[in-house]
Amino acid sequence: MVLMTSANTTTGPTSATTPVTPAPVTVLGLGDMGSSLARAFVAAGHPTTVWNRSPGKGEDVVSLGAVRAASAEEAVRASGLVVVCLVDYDASDAVLEPLAGALEGRVLVNLTSDTPARSRQAAAWAEKHSLAYLDGAIMVPVDVVGSAQALVFHSGDRAAFEAHESSLKALGEPATFLGEDPGLAAAYDMAVLDFFYGAMGGLVHAFALARAEGIDGASLAPYLNTIAGILPPIAAYTAKHVDTRSYASEGANLAMMAASVDHILHTAKDRGLDVSQLAALKGVTDRAIAEGHGPDSWSSIVEVMAAGH
Amino acid sequence: MVLMTSANTTTGPTSATTPVTPAPVTVLGLGDMGSSLARAFVAAGHPTTVWNRSPGKGEDVVSLGAVRAASAEEAVRASGLVVVCLVDYDASDAVLEPLAGALEGRVLVNLTSDTPARSRQAAAWAEKHSLAYLDGAIMVPVDVVGSAQALVFHSGDRAAFEAHESSLKALGEPATFLGEDPGLAAAYDMAVLDFFYGAMGGLVHAFALARAEGIDGASLAPYLNTIAGILPPIAAYTAKHVDTRSYASEGANLAMMAASVDHILHTAKDRGLDVSQLAALKGVTDRAIAEGHGPDSWSSIVEVMAAGH
Ligand SMILES: NC(=O)c1ccc[n+]([C@@H]2O[C@H](COP(=O)([O-])OP(=O)(O)OC[C@H]3O[C@@H](n4cnc5c(N)ncnc54)[C@H](OP(=O)(O)O)[C@@H]3O)[C@@H](O)[C@H]2O)c1
Ligand SMILES: NC(=O)c1ccc[n+]([C@@H]2O[C@H](COP(=O)([O-])OP(=O)(O)OC[C@H]3O[C@@H](n4cnc5c(N)ncnc54)[C@H](OP(=O)(O)O)[C@@H]3O)[C@@H](O)[C@H]2O)c1
Repeated sequence: MVLMTSANTTTGPTSATTPVTPAPVTVLGLGDMGSSLARAFVAAGHPTTVWNRSPGKGEDVVSLGAVRAASAEEAVRASGLVVVCLVDYDASDAVLEPLAGALEGRVLVNLTSDTPARSRQAAAWAEKHSLAYLDGAIMVPVDVVGSAQALVFHSGDRAAFEAHESSLKALGEPATFLGEDPGLAAAYDMAVLDFFYGAMGGLVHAFALARAEGIDGASLAPYLNTIAGILPPIAAYTAKHVDTRSYASEGANLAMMAASVDHILHTAKDRGLDVSQLAALKGVTDRAIAEGHGPDSWSSIVEVMAAGH
Repeated sequence: MVLMTSANTTTGPTSATTPVTPAPVTVLGLGDMGSSLARAFVAAGHPTTVWNRSPGKGEDVVSLGAVRAASAEEAVRASGLVVVCLVDYDASDAVLEPLAGALEGRVLVNLTSDTPARSRQAAAWAEKHSLAYLDGAIMVPVDVVGSAQALVFHSGDRAAFEAHESSLKALGEPATFLGEDPGLAAAYDMAVLDFFYGAMGGLVHAFALARAEGIDGASLAPYLNTIAGILPPIAAYTAKHVDTRSYASEGANLAMMAASVDHILHTAKDRGLDVSQLAALKGVTDRAIAEGHGPDSWSSIVEVMAAGH
């Protein structure tokens, strides 16, 4: 119960003008990402308590100064801010369900990635138990966590976010609050990951294709940076096209680009590679062209991805 | 025949020490990319002759100082360096076939994008007619052509490349010569585009998913830059994994990432979006996990993309 007092203290809003003593934090889950979060809290000076279902994980975090709790409940009771980061919401629901009592008066931040529907369910569970709940998502690899490039989304209880913003900034600055709908962080997460995994699928397939053509990975990799560099301006005008539903070709038309997709598909097929991703993409471009979008920009394929097509 | 003299002069190797008077160049094809190439040559001071099958294209290039030829043959005879950039090799073969005689003594650079097989066929045709042939590929959008960021691949006749390197640098510096196999530029082109179109498919789907979740494009776009920024280091270690066929998880394992792909797929499906690309990607991750790659890195999916799977 002494710990409850500490919890109450740390959940109060912090003044922007007084220097903040790093508040105690708890991290549930010491997989790759949970360990990385704990390391970032320790590095920022937070008294950090950790727990993982299976033993043996997070030894490095403990050696850096984190305290390993004997149980999830003990871990929760150690801090006013409790961060959970597990593989998915089946896992986080299983861990959190018995902890409703221990979580009382604390702020729970779920940085596990899953669908917006699961986030909203978890928020409803927290509300039923009168728990302050934030739902978040980490958008960067483990080695970027804690740096100025570390994008972390939060949504849900605004007061809880504001009370713990300075602690959450240990994971990445600025901590990004998207709104009070607790499903928002997951919705942004899914959209951003949709782009990420498209790129990651293409990336590995590119190396497979290069290898089949006798080109090693080390020779190809530097040229892929050119592509990463041209994506941000393309993302910017694609956003404009999608928002206005007008698809001016910006120096590159869909018909020409669809021909390129077809060339890649044939090259890969001739080399005996799996072409399922390329075939799916070609299917989308074919349908967009059939609907008259050949002279438009690539972004016009959004029209045949939406419901009703 | 007077023009042949000019052609012979400009195909001679230029000394690196003497300042170069920009040599005459010809551009066949004034689509988006052909026009952009012609603009870059004009901007660099090259006497530039242009031709396009259909009238009405390239008015801007002519207004900048390019000379429009009445026929493809007339265009070819105007310069020692002839660049062709059409939609694909069906188009470039159709244009070039009747021009073998006119191309004699000149250097032909085909910057049309297509499969390595088509490039090698075109090179064989050029060899049959004793024409100096370079096969290339442009890896950047039209507005980047001519800048220091403009990656342009060349392969084929090394002497021809060296003779015209200073002119080809007008399109982007450095001009990249990949080797004497004329299919090499296309092979690199296909691999780089495989990554590009994976990202482009994911990009538009991300906006479709965001829209379905009530998030507009302008709100999503800035966060996509974070993803573009993390891709180069991932490409670098993926290259190493693929070359060594060892797939150490680099702070993120395939099982966790496959769970994310599944979350995106479900979110998109629930919103009635087309999920063919995501389903294809999930199929690949499923097979890799079935082969025991769950604890490995994402790059291990290369093993199930290759022939025989
Ligand atoms: N790694 C990254 O680069 C990265 C980047 C952005 C976001 N994320 C997100 O971060 C979250 C965690 O990813 P990760 O990389 O840390 O995954 P991971 O290394 O595979 O770790 C998974 C964690 O989940 C726990 N877990 C699984 N099932 C459980 C259950 N039923 N009960 C209790 N614990 C369970 C595991 O505990 P055991 O040790 O007991 O199995 C482990 O702590 C995911 O949602 C992921 O999408 C990761
Ligand atoms: N645009 C880009 O951003 C970009 C970037 C990198 C690479 N590329 C590559 O550059 C090449 C050209 O692309 P683009 O954007 O300029 O395409 P585009 O704007 O669609 O222009 C296509 C060109 O091909 C010509 N053409 C088509 N069929 C023909 C035929 N049978 N005979 C003669 N000419 C024919 C067209 O002439 P008409 O006007 O007579 O139809 C036009 O000049 C493609 O291989 C593409 O992959 C483009």
